[in-house]
Amino acid sequence: MAYFDAASAVPLHPVARQALLASLDEGWADPARLYREGRRARMLLDAAREAVAEAVGCRADEVVFTPSGTRAVHTGVAGALAGRRRVGRHLIVSTVEHSSVLHSAEVFEADGGTVTRVPVNRAGAVDPSGYADALREDTALAVLQSANHEVGTEQPVAEVAEACRAAGVPLLVDAAQSLGWGRVEGGWSLLAASAHKWGGPPGVGLLVVRKGVRFAARGPVDERESGRAAGFENIPAIVAAAASLRAVRAEAAAEAVRLRELTERIRARVPELVPDVEVVGDPGRRLPGVVTFSCLYVDGETLLHELDREGFSVSSGSSCTSSTLTPSHVLRAMGVLSEGNVRVSLPPGAAEEDVERFLSVLPGAVASVREKLGAPAAAPAAPAAEDAVVVDAVGRRCPIPVIELAKVIGDVPVGGTVRVLADDEAARLDIPAWCEMRGQEYVGEEPADRGVAYVVRRLS
Amino acid sequence: MAYFDAASAVPLHPVARQALLASLDEGWADPARLYREGRRARMLLDAAREAVAEAVGCRADEVVFTPSGTRAVHTGVAGALAGRRRVGRHLIVSTVEHSSVLHSAEVFEADGGTVTRVPVNRAGAVDPSGYADALREDTALAVLQSANHEVGTEQPVAEVAEACRAAGVPLLVDAAQSLGWGRVEGGWSLLAASAHKWGGPPGVGLLVVRKGVRFAARGPVDERESGRAAGFENIPAIVAAAASLRAVRAEAAAEAVRLRELTERIRARVPELVPDVEVVGDPGRRLPGVVTFSCLYVDGETLLHELDREGFSVSSGSSCTSSTLTPSHVLRAMGVLSEGNVRVSLPPGAAEEDVERFLSVLPGAVASVREKLGAPAAAPAAPAAEDAVVVDAVGRRCPIPVIELAKVIGDVPVGGTVRVLADDEAARLDIPAWCEMRGQEYVGEEPADRGVAYVVRRLS
Repeated sequence: MAYFDAASAVPLHPVARQALLASLDEGWADPARLYREGRRARMLLDAAREAVAEAVGCRADEVVFTPSGTRAVHTGVAGALAGRRRVGRHLIVSTVEHSSVLHSAEVFEADGGTVTRVPVNRAGAVDPSGYADALREDTALAVLQSANHEVGTEQPVAEVAEACRAAGVPLLVDAAQSLGWGRVEGGWSLLAASAHKWGGPPGVGLLVVRKGVRFAARGPVDERESGRAAGFENIPAIVAAAASLRAVRAEAAAEAVRLRELTERIRARVPELVPDVEVVGDPGRRLPGVVTFSCLYVDGETLLHELDREGFSVSSGSSCTSSTLTPSHVLRAMGVLSEGNVRVSLPPGAAEEDVERFLSVLPGAVASVREKLGAPAAAPAAPAAEDAVVVDAVGRRCPIPVIELAKVIGDVPVGGTVRVLADDEAARLDIPAWCEMRGQEYVGEEPADRGVAYVVRRLS
Repeated sequence: MAYFDAASAVPLHPVARQALLASLDEGWADPARLYREGRRARMLLDAAREAVAEAVGCRADEVVFTPSGTRAVHTGVAGALAGRRRVGRHLIVSTVEHSSVLHSAEVFEADGGTVTRVPVNRAGAVDPSGYADALREDTALAVLQSANHEVGTEQPVAEVAEACRAAGVPLLVDAAQSLGWGRVEGGWSLLAASAHKWGGPPGVGLLVVRKGVRFAARGPVDERESGRAAGFENIPAIVAAAASLRAVRAEAAAEAVRLRELTERIRARVPELVPDVEVVGDPGRRLPGVVTFSCLYVDGETLLHELDREGFSVSSGSSCTSSTLTPSHVLRAMGVLSEGNVRVSLPPGAAEEDVERFLSVLPGAVASVREKLGAPAAAPAAPAAEDAVVVDAVGRRCPIPVIELAKVIGDVPVGGTVRVLADDEAARLDIPAWCEMRGQEYVGEEPADRGVAYVVRRLS
């Protein structure tokens, strides 16, 4: 049994568990009350706020505890936009932000705001100049993640913050994936994070709003958490979250080196062990524990089942039941293959032998899925007669359209074309990605009577 | 040490603690994931939802877990109003709802909606006809608490629900104070509650939306909890909340009888033991564990400190640091005395000897506060010369204006008047209440150069 989905959630840290138990006894009362149980709860809450502020590198009165990381993002984006409404109604995000950011942007657009979505390179990173160029007179807020949740790529936060600061625009950093590893450097204005990513309990998000940043809380008045997060404070969970953050930070430097070595091993060996694989994300500037790859001719969900049967819990950007957008908006924005996508995110303490066993199990799991789906075994065979072939994959989900394409590419001569008719949205990403991996030419897409026709020219 | 503020929060029930510990181990993963840790989390969440539905008396798919009771109210009110926006933009609430309801109503008004606030009688109860009369063609929603959080008075929910149903208007019941004691009867449409009121952990609220009720979720899209509560599910806390609800319900019938006897004892004996006290709230139709009284010539906050020193944790509707509106909007709506207000709310298991000790300590605590404040010892003395006396209490906080009034009322002859100049908002409530308790005539208020002049005529 090996749990390799730390980017989703990690089990409670032992230190957090202890803190939670103690503060369930001491911190259950209303901290607004004057009697001793209330005062005790208030002291615990204040101490947790101090500890978190120290870990973040901010003032305690800049820290707001929210019920989740998602709520921290929703509250932070809405509050910052409302606070600068008079400046304008323009928002900048990257195309690879977490769904909580992108959905916040959609709500803002529906309400009349304008959103610029800064693209990323094939490694998943934004260019700081992309943000600099997007800044306008009426820009109210920019949002950028510290590191991507699906592929682990780190973003140039400090440079983007500098560009924003020069323009007088606040930058909100979504630090959900990185805060356990260290402070977010640079002159950011707001920060959001989630405790269950660093071994804290669920139920605690973090929103930091720097002094001087204009912020207008939305929704009904509630005086708790500086009026920025309504509802009874979840003090036991907050105390546990703070304790866990301190604990993982103390171990972070050493553990980062160890996990980076393990993920480096996966990055290097998966393409050796499994044919037709693309490892995605930046090879250097990335989170220590995350490695993501996509496998041609494989259905992500089926591969997850195979790996689960072998005792490995991983996630997939191409799984329909993941809580992200489907198919992965991140992989799409990067322009890389999405089919057969696997994200391995190692939790602190992940065992080397589990990683080795994963590497030994993976080739068989992928082969088994490919066999079930009837994927082509190797390069196409003899040259063929027809100059143009049509493959009808309408009504069939990816990776079937790509598999059918691969089966017939050898049936046309070099220079001939294959038209793949498909109506699965993922084909739009995966057919061009296949062409790039295979050295074939992706001509483009055309409307068709049924679905869309994706046209591929055989080059070799 | 006796904690008598169960209406704010109660410690974690032992059953909830066990459930929390077990599900921290089993329920920390993302329930949307397909691997075994995710499936286990999903099973725990589903089971908790079933258990809560059974306790509420609804379908499991009508239950939404929110991060707090406050968020359940905010989400429920906003979603129901938005869902029926085409019907109209009129909302009905009572004047004694929890601040989360009243603040939701304020936001709705600021956004162009219209709100009718149904008054209560001196016991704190609405008349069902008050709701029936308030219903209009364009009424989108009505909200009523099952029982009041400050004075314990139960509301005629079933009758109000019937009136609403006849008009085709959904009723949202704020059941925060009563759900641990039993189901809310009647044909309500939505229900909100809070787990830490029934011995569950903080971090769990409950929103029930009956099938067929129009509901439009607000804010950024998030597919969790039927799209009605964004953010990673707090499964360990939800499981603990469900376990606690079952456990307290199993003990509810017997415990209600026992607590009712204890609060009845407080209701009867406090006026015998302490002079100039008004016990407020309905004597019969009330929560088992809540009893509230107000003491003339007493500052609530100081009395709370005195009682805290004696080992009693109670709250006050006249305490500035309470998390409710200040001075208590509930007591104001009832038209009863707010000064020296004390709410005793006994948790399940409250010991009889602690109640007896409270009754033995209270008279001394009240006397001590009165002495500090220079309250009049007894009835005023000899008749006086002047026909009209002015007392200047501007800049002084209640209960000082009332104390000064009491000191001079004997200085005017029967038929003469006292004008009290005051700028503490609480005087508007407490001076008429004093007149009623003392058999004097409250003539009314007049503008004054400094503060407001409250005019009292001596009748006896």
